[in-house]
Amino acid sequence: MTADADADVDVDVDFGADGLVPAVAQDADSGEVLMLAYVSPTALERTRETGRAHYYSRSRDELWEKGVTSGHVQRVEEVRVDCDADALLYLVDQEGGACHTGHRSCFHRTVEGETVGERVFDPDDVYDDG
Amino acid sequence: MTADADADVDVDVDFGADGLVPAVAQDADSGEVLMLAYVSPTALERTRETGRAHYYSRSRDELWEKGVTSGHVQRVEEVRVDCDADALLYLVDQEGGACHTGHRSCFHRTVEGETVGERVFDPDDVYDDG
Repeated sequence: MTADADADVDVDVDFGADGLVPAVAQDADSGEVLMLAYVSPTALERTRETGRAHYYSRSRDELWEKGVTSGHVQRVEEVRVDCDADALLYLVDQEGGACHTGHRSCFHRTVEGETVGERVFDPDDVYDDG
Repeated sequence: MTADADADVDVDVDFGADGLVPAVAQDADSGEVLMLAYVSPTALERTRETGRAHYYSRSRDELWEKGVTSGHVQRVEEVRVDCDADALLYLVDQEGGACHTGHRSCFHRTVEGETVGERVFDPDDVYDDG
């Protein structure tokens, strides 16, 4: 018996020199692009195991589950990979807002500085500075 | 007379150590995420000047106008920037397909290897290898 060459097999993601790939989170229903963050092999593994979006924080240098502090978790419906296998797309069901500023999307400004995105929560109510 | 503090001013994009930021191209009508590529200060400037998407190729180490070879240009309706100003979102009107494989989107596969995206052209008809 030979292996089935047509069977779907996991794509070999190219994590590159720094061990990270950029991942775009998109609202699975509305199509809104919510954020861009970075993903390590472990972050991808945890995302697939748990169905909740995990990333790797470059500034804090640690694995990070989206929404652990804010409650604004992302349930991941599907993970896609691009043609070069060096970028990911998370199709998510976003609880609350993706952005720490209180906006639904981190991409809530034009490059000209105009705010175009919806604000859905007050960060003071969500992030405890005390 | 004082400057108007409320006036929209261009966001100061953080191009980071390597002088590049990731940019997501999204179909302005359908909301489909088409591709992720990198943008240099010059690529952003050209994009805003011409209204056509420019990127910076890390592999070829050069400025790159999307669609120059294939004809599959992206007319940019809006450029957005994320909360940390280190990622961009191009809202585009995509001619043909964004992906060199002939698919509408570079994100046409799940990480499990299943093809889920639409193929809209035959690369052999578009890219001249001769």
